[in-house]
Amino acid sequence: MNNFSYHNPTRIIFGKDTIGEVGHHTAQYAKKVLLHYGSGSIKKNGIYDTVVSSLKEHGIEFLELSGVVPNPRLSLVKKGIELCRKEEITFILAVGGGSVIDSAKAIAFGTLLGNDEDIWDDYYMNKDCSVTRSLDVGVVLTIPAAGSESSISTVITNDTNDLKRAVNQEALTPRFAIMDPQTNYTLPDYQSACGAADILAHLMERYFTNSHYNNLSDAFLEAAMRNVISFAPLALIDPSEYRYRAELMWTGTIAHNGLLDRGRVGDWASHAIEHELSGVYDIAHGAGLAIIFPAWMKYVYHHDIDRFVQWAARVWNISVSLDDKETVVLLAIRALEEFFRSLTLPIRLSDAGIGPQDITRMAENLMKGSDGTGNFVHLGQKDVEQILRLAL
Amino acid sequence: MNNFSYHNPTRIIFGKDTIGEVGHHTAQYAKKVLLHYGSGSIKKNGIYDTVVSSLKEHGIEFLELSGVVPNPRLSLVKKGIELCRKEEITFILAVGGGSVIDSAKAIAFGTLLGNDEDIWDDYYMNKDCSVTRSLDVGVVLTIPAAGSESSISTVITNDTNDLKRAVNQEALTPRFAIMDPQTNYTLPDYQSACGAADILAHLMERYFTNSHYNNLSDAFLEAAMRNVISFAPLALIDPSEYRYRAELMWTGTIAHNGLLDRGRVGDWASHAIEHELSGVYDIAHGAGLAIIFPAWMKYVYHHDIDRFVQWAARVWNISVSLDDKETVVLLAIRALEEFFRSLTLPIRLSDAGIGPQDITRMAENLMKGSDGTGNFVHLGQKDVEQILRLAL
Repeated sequence: MNNFSYHNPTRIIFGKDTIGEVGHHTAQYAKKVLLHYGSGSIKKNGIYDTVVSSLKEHGIEFLELSGVVPNPRLSLVKKGIELCRKEEITFILAVGGGSVIDSAKAIAFGTLLGNDEDIWDDYYMNKDCSVTRSLDVGVVLTIPAAGSESSISTVITNDTNDLKRAVNQEALTPRFAIMDPQTNYTLPDYQSACGAADILAHLMERYFTNSHYNNLSDAFLEAAMRNVISFAPLALIDPSEYRYRAELMWTGTIAHNGLLDRGRVGDWASHAIEHELSGVYDIAHGAGLAIIFPAWMKYVYHHDIDRFVQWAARVWNISVSLDDKETVVLLAIRALEEFFRSLTLPIRLSDAGIGPQDITRMAENLMKGSDGTGNFVHLGQKDVEQILRLAL
Repeated sequence: MNNFSYHNPTRIIFGKDTIGEVGHHTAQYAKKVLLHYGSGSIKKNGIYDTVVSSLKEHGIEFLELSGVVPNPRLSLVKKGIELCRKEEITFILAVGGGSVIDSAKAIAFGTLLGNDEDIWDDYYMNKDCSVTRSLDVGVVLTIPAAGSESSISTVITNDTNDLKRAVNQEALTPRFAIMDPQTNYTLPDYQSACGAADILAHLMERYFTNSHYNNLSDAFLEAAMRNVISFAPLALIDPSEYRYRAELMWTGTIAHNGLLDRGRVGDWASHAIEHELSGVYDIAHGAGLAIIFPAWMKYVYHHDIDRFVQWAARVWNISVSLDDKETVVLLAIRALEEFFRSLTLPIRLSDAGIGPQDITRMAENLMKGSDGTGNFVHLGQKDVEQILRLAL
């Protein structure tokens, strides 16, 4: 177990009919806020009305900035920064899923940057950036997937060059997150499936590590993976069953709040490769992960086959004799693919209508501002190309 | 899954040779602190020197209050409160195990009470108390057991009447906890064993609940229990093996930082009964729990035998056919007793040299300021007496 520091101060307010508490929690930070959301589905399902009425009840003035799209864009972030500076806003309330929250976090720290700083070049393209100041961010989570509601991360796509990059800094951790699983009842099946794939991917990124002797985290990651594997298909069959939605929503937070990778270094190559994929093709992040992760596994499992054998045994319950570890691992990767397929997710680039034509470009994009990706196995441009070919 | 709120802002600094960071973290809160510790073992093993040198390096002035004993006493808490008020101290650094931390928390909120308030009567004896203000508390943890390093709890024994009571309030959560598993190498075996029993008990208190449909927490609690069951015996065999100590220390924190009982109501009757036992007999809390928990289980398992069957199957790997659930459960309780016994802990009052003479008094003590104990099964005075008799 490596040395570690852990600090996650996000207050989680979880459960039925909790959204009406948003005014109370927001009032502890600000009296004038930016209400940030997506395409307006929150106006159809009543969430917008509940939020607005709670803000008003607590005397909180708000401006609105909507229009966040999946793979949230830098151009909207810049618009948000301008608005917050002009209106002297100190708090951003993100109502939506990971894209809205990531956009809100970008606006939050971007607003406080100096005139000589560029949010994209100096932060998203610079792995050594240090964010020490940010406006406060609060969250009403409507899609369990990204875990951004209590994570240190924001991922933004630069719509001028199709690059998609992350900033990971403690100062970006939201102040609070309100999570009502009932809001997930009306999610389109495909979005629920993509969310489940994203949660599972967050757990797998942390699981495949070269840091040894960390059994509690291993066991928690395995338990959380089994939870996604159990409840995601059930939530698709019975979308309005509270307990399935609650399991997925809470697992999504735990998967990415930093707790489960203390004392270890996760891999994150599959995320990095997927970011290039969805940067170029604008497909859903979860769908991209369902395509990339099995290919990544096939490419790297020889690096530490025992880690994959443990995953096969403890997550997928595969009990083939260990005198043929390779078969054990291949069966587990196949089980992962079958799981994604059962959620109607693509597991090959061809399933998403994507051919080989942009493979080199995506691999080149990944190398911009970086010497490669992956901690379990470090991958250069040629490795990334081969993984993308395995995914064809 | 019940609705819940979760907020745990304690910063954990975990790993080898981390104690020297204490000055850096303390300096963020105060320049003059109370250094609170126990009988002085920290002077023998070098921890005291490391702490003092780090405080000095960061220009932090400190006063000392030592002498905290297991089952920490109200009289010392009052002395600490007086000292903090007189010296205008705003930060307490607890260096030790659960007793030292609990004593520090009591001093921390006690210092800010009004002149018309009594810390014992108005807080420890009053379940409805609300602590809104407290001095800041920092921790250097040397004994993994109580989980107090990032919990909301403080348990104090009133040395004028042998009553032992808890206050559980968010405001008592420490600011930071520094945890170096190497400090546990020199713990006496019995103290390591008592710590393991306390950790396991914190997990079991949360596990036996009437709140259903909370599989992620169930699975995490089971994994954490298996971790204690695996690594506690190994730490006794090989006391200086870092990875065993690290697993136990991290599990001890997770077991009691509030995360694993979100959405559910734990039982806590065994803790309440044990508090009366160690209040009267001054035995180690972990040893008392090893005596009380099996007796409690025998008394209550009929209330929800399926919960005990799940525990038997998923923690103890007992796979007797479910057409005889009672046998499954009794085998699991026996496995728990054998586990405690293997750590050389007492599992009966008689093992600790305690007879039936004080059973009525302890049960009466428990009813003071309360209508009984236990959420899984609510227990009155007669129930508590019967459990204590089962433990003879």
